[in-house]
Amino acid sequence: MFAEIIAVGSELLTPFRLDTNSLMLTDRLNRLGIEVRRKVVVGDDRESLDKAIRCALGADGGAGLLILMGGLGPTEDDRTRESLASVLGRRVYLDESVATGLRERFRRRGMEMPEINLRQAMVVDGAVVLENPKGSAPGLWIEDGGRYIALLPGPPHEAEAVFERHCLPRLDRLVPGVPLVTRVLKIAGMFESQVDQVAAPIYRRYENPVTTILASPGEIELHLRATGASEEEARERVDELAGKLKAALGDKVFSENGESLPEVLGRLLLMKHKTLAVAESCTGGMVGERITRIPGSSAYFLGSLVSYSNEAKVNWLEVPRKVIETDGAVSAETARIMAEGVRRRFASDIGLSITGIAGPGGSGTDKPVGLVYLAVADENGHRISERQFPGDRQLVRSQAAQVGLDMVRRRLMQI
Amino acid sequence: MFAEIIAVGSELLTPFRLDTNSLMLTDRLNRLGIEVRRKVVVGDDRESLDKAIRCALGADGGAGLLILMGGLGPTEDDRTRESLASVLGRRVYLDESVATGLRERFRRRGMEMPEINLRQAMVVDGAVVLENPKGSAPGLWIEDGGRYIALLPGPPHEAEAVFERHCLPRLDRLVPGVPLVTRVLKIAGMFESQVDQVAAPIYRRYENPVTTILASPGEIELHLRATGASEEEARERVDELAGKLKAALGDKVFSENGESLPEVLGRLLLMKHKTLAVAESCTGGMVGERITRIPGSSAYFLGSLVSYSNEAKVNWLEVPRKVIETDGAVSAETARIMAEGVRRRFASDIGLSITGIAGPGGSGTDKPVGLVYLAVADENGHRISERQFPGDRQLVRSQAAQVGLDMVRRRLMQI
Repeated sequence: MFAEIIAVGSELLTPFRLDTNSLMLTDRLNRLGIEVRRKVVVGDDRESLDKAIRCALGADGGAGLLILMGGLGPTEDDRTRESLASVLGRRVYLDESVATGLRERFRRRGMEMPEINLRQAMVVDGAVVLENPKGSAPGLWIEDGGRYIALLPGPPHEAEAVFERHCLPRLDRLVPGVPLVTRVLKIAGMFESQVDQVAAPIYRRYENPVTTILASPGEIELHLRATGASEEEARERVDELAGKLKAALGDKVFSENGESLPEVLGRLLLMKHKTLAVAESCTGGMVGERITRIPGSSAYFLGSLVSYSNEAKVNWLEVPRKVIETDGAVSAETARIMAEGVRRRFASDIGLSITGIAGPGGSGTDKPVGLVYLAVADENGHRISERQFPGDRQLVRSQAAQVGLDMVRRRLMQI
Repeated sequence: MFAEIIAVGSELLTPFRLDTNSLMLTDRLNRLGIEVRRKVVVGDDRESLDKAIRCALGADGGAGLLILMGGLGPTEDDRTRESLASVLGRRVYLDESVATGLRERFRRRGMEMPEINLRQAMVVDGAVVLENPKGSAPGLWIEDGGRYIALLPGPPHEAEAVFERHCLPRLDRLVPGVPLVTRVLKIAGMFESQVDQVAAPIYRRYENPVTTILASPGEIELHLRATGASEEEARERVDELAGKLKAALGDKVFSENGESLPEVLGRLLLMKHKTLAVAESCTGGMVGERITRIPGSSAYFLGSLVSYSNEAKVNWLEVPRKVIETDGAVSAETARIMAEGVRRRFASDIGLSITGIAGPGGSGTDKPVGLVYLAVADENGHRISERQFPGDRQLVRSQAAQVGLDMVRRRLMQI
């Protein structure tokens, strides 16, 4: 079975809001083996709504499950019930028992129900009313020509509550249950094209699992999705392909269970009983910020020094003024001394340093924008990396932070 | 003119990703007076893509402007060009000049272009090729039966670059233009409900401009949108309401021209010839990261010390061990000494410090999660603020960073 989700609400068509409900729904549906094929956001005018519903239920094999969210409130802007009824050619009637429930709800709060709220007692002919444990707008469940349609209220906690209580059990019975298992391999230190060159010859041989490649700065993800007759079979399929991909990509794969790089790094530091301190220049604090997103990071992260000025590099990290003058603030030698300096000054097991030119302008030297030096120092010595990152200021910084975290991770793997 | 946006990519149909590009596009389109009527997310299979494009261009008055994003990459998953061509009944051909440009682009990076990238030189018959300044996939611009169709690459910075450079000027000429003037007042240091209590009685008296309130951690935005017979008229309307709101909200309004708080702060520091250094604890580097997003921030930002451990507070910032034992690491006194310490150690004009409990667990004291102390120190003394922020770890950190930046801004306004 495939699903389509339509989120209704003009506020979702402004530059300020996203439909985030669909993520919760997608997660629940995927676990049942139901794939979301399409997500639509429409305003609350009848024309747009009618068109969206018509498209979803279209003759060319529309979705087996259509979920409409929002537009079930009491005001004139709330037209989802009416629109669906009109597309299905059904009437809408006032359900007295829903109306009584609404009046009761208001009474419990010591209020008289405004007449306008009676709109929420309107029910599409033949629909099952789905009681809303978190708000006044009930949902609806409709079967029509072998298809299933759910109307959910728009507020996230209400949508989730109605879906979990009323839709999940129904879907559980309906779906023959093609188990679906997903896996995400996360890769650092490679560009998308480099990953694809290695991975594509492997995953292209499989139609099941389906593999998608996804790139963000400094991080490539391979999404594997397999179906099977049983969950075990689906899992075996994912395991087989994931195993081959990991063998080919080696230790560039840093996670296969959804963990972020700072989480993996934190787990390794804890496991190996090591502490970390960081000297950041062009990243300005980004590495520390990412590490400390993880609760409990104070157990292994001692702190960082953002040495944005040369003075700070000299005074705090003991980079000799002579090195900055001859090699430059952005150089392998400065990076090495920064990593060793921050390690010594924080008395940490490992020191990481990043110094580079984030751009856009004025490096003040003949060095190109995007050039970054990174160094990792520990009791056994140091390792330096020179990188030339593409992209604008924020992209260069993001990639540098990511590579820095990954250098520490790779060093820890060897300890 | 109305627009529809279709984001293409199976990863956008997983529980992990949202289409955020559409926000940027919506903002740009709204400024031209073009309303977005519908947003769709589809996977990269041909069936879904074809159906989505057919629906968008449907006989019942489809969108005058259709923007397709994503699926222009070099792999077999990238089918947007082919799908659109097939729905429009046009052929696709290999454009030699695009191919030459692609080869050249690879050569500049010292690489041979993989054959597969030739897919990106495929052009829909009759389309204008939109050069991509940030990536290899060019966009396309197509006129078809009085409608306009833009194909943009999927990565956000590429989509934005291609849209700004090629689509905006074209749309500017096309749209008859009901002049629309927008203004965004940004407010720090107040919660949404507090802002609304002050602002709503003022903006509710106006139907034009339309006012929308938008909240993100530590920052509330009031969006004003006015139309008029002329741009002057629209601008006067916005000016009138903005003036009244600013009078009511006072210096909590930090920007009305779209500037971010770090930009405003940077401008003030430059103007007043002051330098800043920061001591961060619970924010872990977030303040430094935000400040250094601004190009040229090295002119006023000397650096920060992320003192995530008590040792770092004692050794680097000279917080007496006794103060940490009696008052605690999260206390007004520790915040004060940190601000003064970092100012002295970096020899900056202003020192900012943040120390707090971000949660979720283990503050190790009886102090509640969300409690944060901030201090600003300069040659005339110091100011301390105690805050209790709601929300989870990342929300507490974000709000703390924002309030810290705002405290420095407000101090600078008095100098």
